[in-house]
Amino acid sequence: MDYFKNRRTIRRYSDRKLTDAEIESMLEQAMHAPTCGSMQLYSVVISRSDAEKQALAPAHFNQPSVTGAQAVITFCADFNRFTQWCRLRGADPGYDNVQSFISAALDTVILAQQFVTIAEMNGLGTCYLGTTTWNAPQIIDTLGLPELVVPVITVTVGYPGENPDLQPRLPHRSLIHYGRYTPCDAESIGQCYDDFESLGQNRKFTAENGKETLAQVFTDVRYTRQANEHFSEIFIGVLKKAKFLNTQQ
Amino acid sequence: MDYFKNRRTIRRYSDRKLTDAEIESMLEQAMHAPTCGSMQLYSVVISRSDAEKQALAPAHFNQPSVTGAQAVITFCADFNRFTQWCRLRGADPGYDNVQSFISAALDTVILAQQFVTIAEMNGLGTCYLGTTTWNAPQIIDTLGLPELVVPVITVTVGYPGENPDLQPRLPHRSLIHYGRYTPCDAESIGQCYDDFESLGQNRKFTAENGKETLAQVFTDVRYTRQANEHFSEIFIGVLKKAKFLNTQQ
Repeated sequence: MDYFKNRRTIRRYSDRKLTDAEIESMLEQAMHAPTCGSMQLYSVVISRSDAEKQALAPAHFNQPSVTGAQAVITFCADFNRFTQWCRLRGADPGYDNVQSFISAALDTVILAQQFVTIAEMNGLGTCYLGTTTWNAPQIIDTLGLPELVVPVITVTVGYPGENPDLQPRLPHRSLIHYGRYTPCDAESIGQCYDDFESLGQNRKFTAENGKETLAQVFTDVRYTRQANEHFSEIFIGVLKKAKFLNTQQ
Repeated sequence: MDYFKNRRTIRRYSDRKLTDAEIESMLEQAMHAPTCGSMQLYSVVISRSDAEKQALAPAHFNQPSVTGAQAVITFCADFNRFTQWCRLRGADPGYDNVQSFISAALDTVILAQQFVTIAEMNGLGTCYLGTTTWNAPQIIDTLGLPELVVPVITVTVGYPGENPDLQPRLPHRSLIHYGRYTPCDAESIGQCYDDFESLGQNRKFTAENGKETLAQVFTDVRYTRQANEHFSEIFIGVLKKAKFLNTQQ
């Protein structure tokens, strides 16, 4: 069980090959993860050739883990297959709404995380790409995703070509509440973030970005209001076009 | 690695005790799972006393796994703590939007699934409660969740008090696409669902519900259009009230 506390995200991969059969075997195992009402509301699209990976790279801001990976796996919330099954079986499906998208997205992330754990326990390295919902329109176009199929998260996978340090985490007790949520105040925020801000890598990161505080690096550089709002509008458009907002305004 | 293909969801628990320290240790391990930009955009609320579990039970339609569990753990997307940290550090946070909710929800589900895997590998039984987003308003009220904190998924945990059969899964190849998504047709839907529909438990389930097809049990009984649309409207209201739709209409 030492694995869980020592896992690292791997962004650079070696040339060691991974076969389709090996990837499929890990996905098959991962599909035994919990799923809403046994519906398995997901599909995965595996991009393996250089051309396929290069076609996806711009949607992930050309992060090198995309073209360097043995496979790029796009995990998609999918109510299309289930809806078509219903129609072919004389049933009237009503899954063109937000709650159905959420059910499918939960299934999809649970599957992705189970795949990541299985891959890492098999000695592979993985990296999540959160850019998936930001640039969903390009991914939908590149992968040919139909209605009621929306990409939720992407995983790059391959044998590790780097050995990064363990990433720091906030004190776990700051994130755990008993019975009721205890709102933060200046003191509890300090207990939660002081050590994190004091880390050499984070002080360096703050200085390199010319900011006074680490928080300003997040708000002004990494996850800005402007970008968040821009990509929020785009994603609402994606849900509408995919017919997951059919019955809401 | 046999665990992954043989895991089962456990809804009934024995009386064997689980301590706060044991739960916290598993959560601490799970918090090393991947997280968006090291932000750890989640909080967990642990309900342990009979009174706390009973208070949550109606929001989960009184499923017996809630009051029977050693702990009910509500995993919440949380941009409140991070936003307060930013404000206290002279940074201007812009996380009151859909894309920020999605980032936090992804972090939250990844954490929940890592916790489930760790708990199950330690011999515990777990059950996800997808009712969390359906009845989010009651859960928010019961747990006292502030702005920018939304419950995403709940896990009940305890030592197993039952030994259920392995749940069937669709053929994994039907859910995997290479390069581009291959749209379904009647033939591929058959390949995907025929065996699932033929299972004794599913034929029995269809007959018990007085339906002609299994799909009709899903559309007419389990996940109806009326319920999906009702709970979608409610959840959009939850996101608005939590300030995650501040900048969208």
